[in-house]
Amino acid sequence: MAGTTVTLTALEGLPLVKPGDDLGALLAAALRRTQIAPMDHDIMVVAQKIVSKAEGRFVNLADVQPSARATAIAKEVRKDPRLVEVILSESTEVIRKKPDVLIVAHRQGFVMANAGVDQSNIGADGDERALLLPRDADASAAVLKAQLDREFGVDFGIIINDSFGRPWRNGVVGVAIGVAGLPALVSLVGAPDLFGRKMRTTEVALADEVAAAASLVMGQSDEGRPAVHVRGVASNTRPVSASALVRPKETDLFR
Amino acid sequence: MAGTTVTLTALEGLPLVKPGDDLGALLAAALRRTQIAPMDHDIMVVAQKIVSKAEGRFVNLADVQPSARATAIAKEVRKDPRLVEVILSESTEVIRKKPDVLIVAHRQGFVMANAGVDQSNIGADGDERALLLPRDADASAAVLKAQLDREFGVDFGIIINDSFGRPWRNGVVGVAIGVAGLPALVSLVGAPDLFGRKMRTTEVALADEVAAAASLVMGQSDEGRPAVHVRGVASNTRPVSASALVRPKETDLFR
Repeated sequence: MAGTTVTLTALEGLPLVKPGDDLGALLAAALRRTQIAPMDHDIMVVAQKIVSKAEGRFVNLADVQPSARATAIAKEVRKDPRLVEVILSESTEVIRKKPDVLIVAHRQGFVMANAGVDQSNIGADGDERALLLPRDADASAAVLKAQLDREFGVDFGIIINDSFGRPWRNGVVGVAIGVAGLPALVSLVGAPDLFGRKMRTTEVALADEVAAAASLVMGQSDEGRPAVHVRGVASNTRPVSASALVRPKETDLFR
Repeated sequence: MAGTTVTLTALEGLPLVKPGDDLGALLAAALRRTQIAPMDHDIMVVAQKIVSKAEGRFVNLADVQPSARATAIAKEVRKDPRLVEVILSESTEVIRKKPDVLIVAHRQGFVMANAGVDQSNIGADGDERALLLPRDADASAAVLKAQLDREFGVDFGIIINDSFGRPWRNGVVGVAIGVAGLPALVSLVGAPDLFGRKMRTTEVALADEVAAAASLVMGQSDEGRPAVHVRGVASNTRPVSASALVRPKETDLFR
């Protein structure tokens, strides 16, 4: 029955991604290798890390001159001042900090640890390089969508996902930072309210739920499975990018 | 390949659940009707609402006498004072409130809107009844697990899920409020840190990711699909209940 089964499949044989690689071509080849024949409304979930690598979003820490502010924060949060400088350059606001924790608003609006700047699994030079988020993850998703749509002649959804911690709950979960070709957020009309006078509307973060589902099969390293094909997610509404998932600062009770 | 495909299937033909119903028996019958032959490590995700209904967790609002505190808060958040009284009775702390928003710590630790007290889709008397969360969702999950394990002779995982809003991000996502037979939280040893001196550990909220995935096929109403079978989620560590997902208040930067 339509909409009652969802299948997630990790793509096989995706090589380690390097700056300048044609990620869309690599994904297309891996889809074929995994013997998946794409259909309209299939979704490809791609780990942020390989998108960033293909886009060459590395920073050499040796080239970074930390500001006085970065140095002061670095002392407080016990991180490399050069790394903190990079994090601040990717952020619009520091939301919370304490030893080992630096939560910021990324310039694209996502509230997250370290602006998504990562030093794990970035190769032999890991100690001296950091990897930033894609410059514009919605745009990156749109580029991949255009490429895969053309390659297979279907209407793909694309999600770029990352793992975020949350207030109040332990553990990270997969979330969407870039979306193309599907609604990141969908509105469902719910039941009448207590007095039966108005209909309640619930917004569901569809792309975040798909991103979390894909994380289940991805594992946590590059040597894992950084691209997942998803079939069966129903969505009848028009595509909405991941920027719609950012709660406006003015309406957020936790900033 | 093991662990590289996850399949989620909504159970077919589950009837509307009423207080006193044997939910485990209903789920077993629906599994058979859906022609699923359960295997070890399969997970059943069950919507909170049908667990609460089977457990008869209804409150008649006509029986509720709001306290002065509930009445004052009700005015501020624009809700029925009797409903606010019920919410407060299920809570240990009010975290934030403003018109139309009442975020509390549920007595089991979950920070959530309205302590999960719901008035939607609870039948013809919806105007005058509210439905609470299960008394102890981990215990409810354990009961369902014992029953399904016995029925099918396999080792099931059980997740009771609900939809929560989040700070900073629009839209609700499925989360786990009760877990049995699988690790709600798993620790992954990550890459060495910046200085290569220590291994970083990442905790993944596995049960929340499965809960979110299941929400994709559930829909939002009782007339939807409130039970989802999940196959293919790899977890080699010992079971951990959903209480492990509650971040201790002392270490939470957002309380």
